[in-house]
Amino acid sequence: MNDSDDVRALLAVYSEAAHAKDVDRFMTMYAPGVRVFDLWGRWEVVGASAWRESITGWFGSLDDDRVVVDFEGVEVSVGGDLAAVTAMVGYSADSPAGERIRQMTNRLTWVLERADDMWRVTHEHTSAPVDDATGAVILAR
Amino acid sequence: MNDSDDVRALLAVYSEAAHAKDVDRFMTMYAPGVRVFDLWGRWEVVGASAWRESITGWFGSLDDDRVVVDFEGVEVSVGGDLAAVTAMVGYSADSPAGERIRQMTNRLTWVLERADDMWRVTHEHTSAPVDDATGAVILAR
Repeated sequence: MNDSDDVRALLAVYSEAAHAKDVDRFMTMYAPGVRVFDLWGRWEVVGASAWRESITGWFGSLDDDRVVVDFEGVEVSVGGDLAAVTAMVGYSADSPAGERIRQMTNRLTWVLERADDMWRVTHEHTSAPVDDATGAVILAR
Repeated sequence: MNDSDDVRALLAVYSEAAHAKDVDRFMTMYAPGVRVFDLWGRWEVVGASAWRESITGWFGSLDDDRVVVDFEGVEVSVGGDLAAVTAMVGYSADSPAGERIRQMTNRLTWVLERADDMWRVTHEHTSAPVDDATGAVILAR
């Protein structure tokens, strides 16, 4: 695998760990000092332990639902030990009966650094566009 | 100047060109194929000519007001010919009488590539967090 494939493989880890609600596996993607600009509620989350709390809260809020994460329009750039990913991310929630009960799209930017031969996310930025007339977030693409 | 300083210098170009409403100078920062995830209205804007239209619209909407742009919490990473910037951006608008008439904060992520010895922005992502109870964007930090 080349560097770009290694970075792209993390998107599969993201989807699989979210579907399994596996916080430990999910957190393997992130560097200790990660700086997150998340869509919801806060300006930024700094550090893997604070981010772990957020992710634990997310997975805990799902009850028996399962999250299905799909990436579209993925672009990867690599320079030395730095990489960047941009993509659209679809988040769906399926009920235990297999019904699709929620669906939204986010825009995702990742910055990654390679250390000890591992790529880890040092910065994550997720968002959705805002209607400039109403100030309401637009979640359906 | 080292690479990090060169990249950081573009933040000054951003502020100065926005204050001067100078579309040509503003667009010198962007690569031809830039992919923008902007806070307002659209999921993405692709290509410098589409982005130029957006910026022309922004500057044209300001009438006689002036935009003052301030960056806080700037972090820069460089790897080879790739770089990334994360920051909080304050946008204020001053009336011709010198009154501050609007103020908001955004989160900014830039991905940059060096070509022909020039750093240019290949990806810009601006956003603000959203209140998860109401779906309303939060613009005051």
